[in-house]
Amino acid sequence: MLPPDSSHTGGLYKLMLEYPLRHGKALRPALSIAVCRACGGYPAAILPTAAVLELYHNAFLVHDDVEDQSDMRRSEPTLFRKYGTPIAVNVGDGMLAMAIQPLLDNIERVGLGKALKILQIVSRMARETAEGQMIELDWVRAANWMHGNGDYIRLVYKKSAWYTFIAPIMAGAVAAGLSDTEVSRLGRITIPLGIAFQIQDDILNISSSEDSYGKDFCGDLWEGKHTLILIHALRCSMPSERSKALAILRRPQTATVRSGEQLNTKSEDEVAFLLEIIERSGSVSYAKMIAQRYANRFKRDLQRTSRSWAPSIHKDFLFELADYTIDRTN
Amino acid sequence: MLPPDSSHTGGLYKLMLEYPLRHGKALRPALSIAVCRACGGYPAAILPTAAVLELYHNAFLVHDDVEDQSDMRRSEPTLFRKYGTPIAVNVGDGMLAMAIQPLLDNIERVGLGKALKILQIVSRMARETAEGQMIELDWVRAANWMHGNGDYIRLVYKKSAWYTFIAPIMAGAVAAGLSDTEVSRLGRITIPLGIAFQIQDDILNISSSEDSYGKDFCGDLWEGKHTLILIHALRCSMPSERSKALAILRRPQTATVRSGEQLNTKSEDEVAFLLEIIERSGSVSYAKMIAQRYANRFKRDLQRTSRSWAPSIHKDFLFELADYTIDRTN
Repeated sequence: MLPPDSSHTGGLYKLMLEYPLRHGKALRPALSIAVCRACGGYPAAILPTAAVLELYHNAFLVHDDVEDQSDMRRSEPTLFRKYGTPIAVNVGDGMLAMAIQPLLDNIERVGLGKALKILQIVSRMARETAEGQMIELDWVRAANWMHGNGDYIRLVYKKSAWYTFIAPIMAGAVAAGLSDTEVSRLGRITIPLGIAFQIQDDILNISSSEDSYGKDFCGDLWEGKHTLILIHALRCSMPSERSKALAILRRPQTATVRSGEQLNTKSEDEVAFLLEIIERSGSVSYAKMIAQRYANRFKRDLQRTSRSWAPSIHKDFLFELADYTIDRTN
Repeated sequence: MLPPDSSHTGGLYKLMLEYPLRHGKALRPALSIAVCRACGGYPAAILPTAAVLELYHNAFLVHDDVEDQSDMRRSEPTLFRKYGTPIAVNVGDGMLAMAIQPLLDNIERVGLGKALKILQIVSRMARETAEGQMIELDWVRAANWMHGNGDYIRLVYKKSAWYTFIAPIMAGAVAAGLSDTEVSRLGRITIPLGIAFQIQDDILNISSSEDSYGKDFCGDLWEGKHTLILIHALRCSMPSERSKALAILRRPQTATVRSGEQLNTKSEDEVAFLLEIIERSGSVSYAKMIAQRYANRFKRDLQRTSRSWAPSIHKDFLFELADYTIDRTN
């Protein structure tokens, strides 16, 4: 092939490193490594894949921050705020482009069969995530916030559970050499954990201090994000309050001005009103209860599924993760 | 694996189809199919890859239109203008996610060796494109328009030649079963064609009517795009005019307003001034001459390289393409 010319890249790779160097939790690589080792696989069999999963996560964050117009990410300004939309969109694309080669190199590392299965999982993951993101953007576009819990669960399954839990756990299991049936079963039982994780994420956005959280405090309300908390609060509100809340949610967070036109944006008071109906409806406690229920279901299913696995700190980590998922503060 | 739930996708796939259904030239698939057939390969060996290359192109267009804030694409409003930045970013991501699976399915179609080589080429292509895009965004950020022809050529090589010409031609040659050496040589001789194509693109942006062009007329000037034409005009202008032009180029095309701040944007008169120095410097004729030179070089090299190929309409098409590249009007 043509010799690569890596000296001229406009600083692309330095910008790709910004989010990964901001001390994320590295949850996805940790999860895939833990599953691989708990099932008797070697670290080397999963490490590059684990890195690719973290790369995907960070690419999604870069693009999400553009889509949500977020100001803060991991306690620093978002890439989009620092460098603008064009650079942020392209840095995310560059990260997605980087993800393919290490998965091809897996062939020499773990053999053709496993490498191809991991490629299939990652390909599916990227599609599910885009579909999930699209469902939510479509709700935003239709200015629709009246959804059942089932709609929310389906959204989270695609938008966040697939790339945060399902793909890392399935990839780890493949790398360890588990059968297709076992890999699928592990993927299935992981879904409730992914849902519990996202509900806790929504809770943190509304109840943490900005300092420990690292993202925009109440950013979800400013943005009008479809959280279980907000969906519950709207469902439980009086019709007049619900109408007022929906009118607020329909207003944008920021406005793009072109040839003089201007749009009404949300005010501090209006976001405070949303917070008020959430408090009055007990929606945060409700969300905590639901998250707990999903986390418990994961633990129960993992107990059954992992009966034949030898005891290990990696297996213990997976159980601890269920508690961490709903107890974490960032 | 888990059963796919394709009924809930928020309309993602309908939006993905918007640009492909707007009658693009389908240059990249045409090119890869022509090379494959000219070298004795079967259409079935390259068709899915050809479709993936067109998918990538359209994904890049969707994101480019966000990055450049373009209004028109293929004679209709851009996806970003119709549905907003968040949806456009995500639709592009969805298209990139879709591209992996057909390349994995190539294994059964053309065999493992060819399929992996094509995956390598596409992976490299995606990286080169992101690097090229970054080089230009970096120039924009540094408000730097004083570049030599060599800088411009290197930019175009990465940003546009790789995914428009080099990857399609190499993929077609791989699918036909050419050796690694032959594939590399074909890739190398294709670079000048890619450069000629981009220079012609820049010429069309400045000299076409919006009707036949399908994109924003003089959009490159509004956007401050680094074209050979603009670089030449700045180089040939008097210092006072150059300073004035640079001051105009540094102003944004549109302004994003947040909490009241407002930015000065370019005016019609200012863009007319840029057009004036371009006309005075004869920069369009200069660009035409350079494009002609590169197109001729490609024809000469292809003549040598294709000596052993049997005569075919596919081979003829490749030679005609060199003329089309610099004679086209859209």
